[in-house]
Amino acid sequence: MKKYYLLIYLIFLSIITFTQTNDSVIIDKIFAISLCREDAYKNLQNLTSTSPKRLAGTAASNSAIDWAIKTMKDAGFDTVYLQKTIVKNWKRNGRESARVNSKKLGERDLNISSFGLSVGTGGKALTTSVVEVHNFDELKTLGEKEIKGKIVFFNRPADPHFFNTGRSYGSAIDQRTAGASEAVKYGAIAVIVRSVTLATDQYPHTGVMRYNENLPKIPAIAVATEHANLLSLWLKQDPSLELTIKTNCQMLEDTVSYNVIGEIWGTEYPKSYITIAGHLDCWDNCDGAHDDGAGCVESIEALSLFKALEMRPKHTLRAVMYMDEEIAQRGGRTYLENAKNNNETHITAIESDAGGFAPTGFSFSASEEVVSYFRQFKPQLEHYGLYYFEKGGSGVDISFLSELKIPLAGLVTNSQRYFDYHHSASDTIDKVNKRELQLGASTMAVYAYLFDIKFK
Amino acid sequence: MKKYYLLIYLIFLSIITFTQTNDSVIIDKIFAISLCREDAYKNLQNLTSTSPKRLAGTAASNSAIDWAIKTMKDAGFDTVYLQKTIVKNWKRNGRESARVNSKKLGERDLNISSFGLSVGTGGKALTTSVVEVHNFDELKTLGEKEIKGKIVFFNRPADPHFFNTGRSYGSAIDQRTAGASEAVKYGAIAVIVRSVTLATDQYPHTGVMRYNENLPKIPAIAVATEHANLLSLWLKQDPSLELTIKTNCQMLEDTVSYNVIGEIWGTEYPKSYITIAGHLDCWDNCDGAHDDGAGCVESIEALSLFKALEMRPKHTLRAVMYMDEEIAQRGGRTYLENAKNNNETHITAIESDAGGFAPTGFSFSASEEVVSYFRQFKPQLEHYGLYYFEKGGSGVDISFLSELKIPLAGLVTNSQRYFDYHHSASDTIDKVNKRELQLGASTMAVYAYLFDIKFK
Repeated sequence: MKKYYLLIYLIFLSIITFTQTNDSVIIDKIFAISLCREDAYKNLQNLTSTSPKRLAGTAASNSAIDWAIKTMKDAGFDTVYLQKTIVKNWKRNGRESARVNSKKLGERDLNISSFGLSVGTGGKALTTSVVEVHNFDELKTLGEKEIKGKIVFFNRPADPHFFNTGRSYGSAIDQRTAGASEAVKYGAIAVIVRSVTLATDQYPHTGVMRYNENLPKIPAIAVATEHANLLSLWLKQDPSLELTIKTNCQMLEDTVSYNVIGEIWGTEYPKSYITIAGHLDCWDNCDGAHDDGAGCVESIEALSLFKALEMRPKHTLRAVMYMDEEIAQRGGRTYLENAKNNNETHITAIESDAGGFAPTGFSFSASEEVVSYFRQFKPQLEHYGLYYFEKGGSGVDISFLSELKIPLAGLVTNSQRYFDYHHSASDTIDKVNKRELQLGASTMAVYAYLFDIKFK
Repeated sequence: MKKYYLLIYLIFLSIITFTQTNDSVIIDKIFAISLCREDAYKNLQNLTSTSPKRLAGTAASNSAIDWAIKTMKDAGFDTVYLQKTIVKNWKRNGRESARVNSKKLGERDLNISSFGLSVGTGGKALTTSVVEVHNFDELKTLGEKEIKGKIVFFNRPADPHFFNTGRSYGSAIDQRTAGASEAVKYGAIAVIVRSVTLATDQYPHTGVMRYNENLPKIPAIAVATEHANLLSLWLKQDPSLELTIKTNCQMLEDTVSYNVIGEIWGTEYPKSYITIAGHLDCWDNCDGAHDDGAGCVESIEALSLFKALEMRPKHTLRAVMYMDEEIAQRGGRTYLENAKNNNETHITAIESDAGGFAPTGFSFSASEEVVSYFRQFKPQLEHYGLYYFEKGGSGVDISFLSELKIPLAGLVTNSQRYFDYHHSASDTIDKVNKRELQLGASTMAVYAYLFDIKFK
C-alpha cells in the first residue's frame, strides 16, 4: 500500500504547498507526511532484531553502531561519522539465578537481574537468610544485630499516586542506586531490590547502581515485582527461609566505543549545530525498543522528514546516537568535550529518551524567551497532542551541553506505560505503535524547524 | 501490595483533607486515589474473561448483564437495576471462510468477518471472480459490464495523514457501510472490504453496514488488511483468479435485552440525574476490552471513586451500561424514551467509547457557557494530560439525550492505537494499561463532580 499512501501524500503536498504562507503550514506538513510514513518503525524493527542487549562495550553495541551508520547513510544524510568515546565495561557474564528455600514452604526460583556496576558472587552460590525492609530508616532500626550476614530485601513499591510516572519511579529508586552501600553499613552481604516499575510482572527491571567507594561492595540485584510479592509473603510465613543467589558480573577495563553522528548541512550557518538525539546503548537484558531505540529512530526520522519535504535547514542538523547512557554517560561527556575542543557552535539540542509513546510536548532547560517562543505555537501544536511546554530537565546525554549555555529540550511523552517496560525483557517492539513513533519524530523535527528559523 | 498502597493512600488523604480548601483539591484527590486503585482493570479482566463476544441478543450479552449487576452491587451502589430494551438480533452462526483460487498462483485462505446486518451465503460456497475498486466512482466507470456476477473488492485504505484517527476511519468507512448497496447496482453478488483500520494485521475488523432497502441484499464482508494486500497483489498477477466465500449470518426476530443501571443517590436533587456511560455489548469476534468494556468499567469506577472519597453528590449519579450500541443503538433510544415517559430530570451525560487509553479531555455537545466553565479548570487538568476542551460529538448512546436539550460530553482519549484493535479479535485486555484506564475513570468522575457542584 506504500504506493497508495505516497500518492495521497503527493496530492496533499501539492495542495498545501500551493497555499503555503507561514510556519503553521510547515508544521502541518511535517506531521501529515510523517503519519504517511513508517520509516521510524521499520528502522526500529531492524535495530531491535539485529542488535538487542546492546550495552556499551558489548559486541551487540558494535552491531548497533553498524546499524546506525548504515541507516543514516541509506537515508542520504550529507555525512555520517563516528565519534570515539571510552566507555565503562561492565559485563553480566551469563545466567543469574536466585532460589528461595523454605523448610516449611518449599523451593521457588525468582527472576532476578544484577544491577549495572554491581559486583557478582563470582559464579558461586551465596546462601543466607533474608530481612525485608522498605527504607533506609528501617535498616538503622534493625541494626547490625538483625542484618549482619544476611541478604537485605528492599521491597518498597513505586508510589503510584503521581500522574507523572517519572515521579513514581523517583519515589523508589534510592533502594536500587544506594541500597547496597546503605545495607553494607550494617553487615549485609547482598541486597535484592523490588524492581522499580509500576507493573506487576515477572520481569526483573535492571538499571545502574552506585557504590560508596569507602565501603565494601556487595552484590545488588533486581527481583521481578511478582516475585518480590511472593518473597514477602513467604517471609511472613517462614522468617527463617534462605535465599541462594548466583551471579557472575564484573567490571572489566574501560573499552573503546563510539557515538554515531549523521548530519544535514545548513545553508546559512553550516558550522552551527542543532543536535537531535537518542541513545544507542540499552540494557543487556532487553531489546531496548522504547529505551532508547525509539529515540534513535525518531532522531534519524526527524532529519529524514526535512529531506522528504525538501526543506534545507539554515543550521546544520545533527542526529546523534549517544553511547553509554545507561552506565556512565561517557558518550554525552565526549560529545561535549569534542564540541569544546573543536570550538563548535551549538545553538540547541533536543533528546528523546522517554519512550516511543505519543509525544505530549517539551521539557525545556532554557530561558523564558525560548519557552515563550515555543508556547506561541501551543494552540496549533495541541492539534497534535502537544500541550506541555514547561521548564524542567532535558535529556541525560545532552544535559552535558548545558555547560555551553544553550537551550536544551527533552521530548515529553505520555508516560503511563513507560516504566512497565523500562530496563526489562518486556521492552520489545510490539509495545511500540508506529504512529506514536512517527509523531515523536515529527515533534523533534518541528522543534528543530522552529528553532532553526528563529534563533542563531 | 494492596495493603501498602492503601496505607499510602490513607496517609495522603489525611494530609490533603486537612488542608482542603477548594475544588482543585478534590480534583487532585480523585486522580491520586484513582491511581492507587486497580478496580477498573480488575473489573475489565472479569468482564472480558467471562463475557467475550457479547453482541446484543446473544447468550454472552446476558452473561455481561449479570456481570454488570453483580459488579455494581458489589461496589455498594444505592440501587442497581435493569432497563428492558428490544434489540436487533443478527447472528453470525459459526465459522466463515474465504479462499482465493488462482490457477497461476495457488490457493490461499483469507481472514474474513461478515459485517453486522449483512446477509450470508446460507452456508453455501459462493465462487466467482473479483474486481478491485477504491471508491464508488470506480464502480460507475467499470459499470455492469465489468462487475455483474462478480465479487467487488473495496481496497481503499484509511487515510493515515490525520492526527485524529477517527478522521482516518471516516475516510474509508463508506466502503463498509454502503459498499454492498452501491456495488449491487452494477450486478455484484458480494462485496469484500479492506478492514477499516490503521494497522497492517491479519485480523478482520468488522462493524455494522446498512442496506438500501430498495435494492437486493448481497453479502458484505471484511478482510484483514494483510490479506487485502495479498489479494490485491494476486489480482495484478492473475486477474482471473476466483474467490470462494462461505458465511451463514442472518437476521432473526428482535429479542429482549437490557441496559444495566447503577445509582448513587444525590443529597439535594435525588430525582435529577447525571449519566456516566459506556456500552456493554461488543462485537461477536472479540473480547471488547477497549470497545467498550473500558467505558463500562470506567463508568462504574467513576461512581466508586465518589464512594471511596466519601463524597455524596448533590444530584444522582447513574452508571449506565448501554446495550446494542454496535448494531442499532436500541439501548440509547430506550433510555431516552424511559426518561421522557417517566418525566425524569437529566442535567448532563458523559460517555466513554474511545477506548481505555490515556484520556486527553472532553468533546462537548453543549453551550459555550458549559464549555467555558470546564475550560477554567484546564490549567490544573493539564497536569493529568487533559488539554482538549472542544465542541464536537459526545457518544453514540447518550447522543439521543440531545432531545432533552442537556449538555453532553464524550471522553476523548489519545486515539493513535484505537483503530488498531477496533472491532477485531485483537481487542484484548493486554492492550489496556491499568493506569490509563484508572485515569479515564477519574476524568469521568471529575466531569461529574464539576458539573454536580455548578449546575442544576
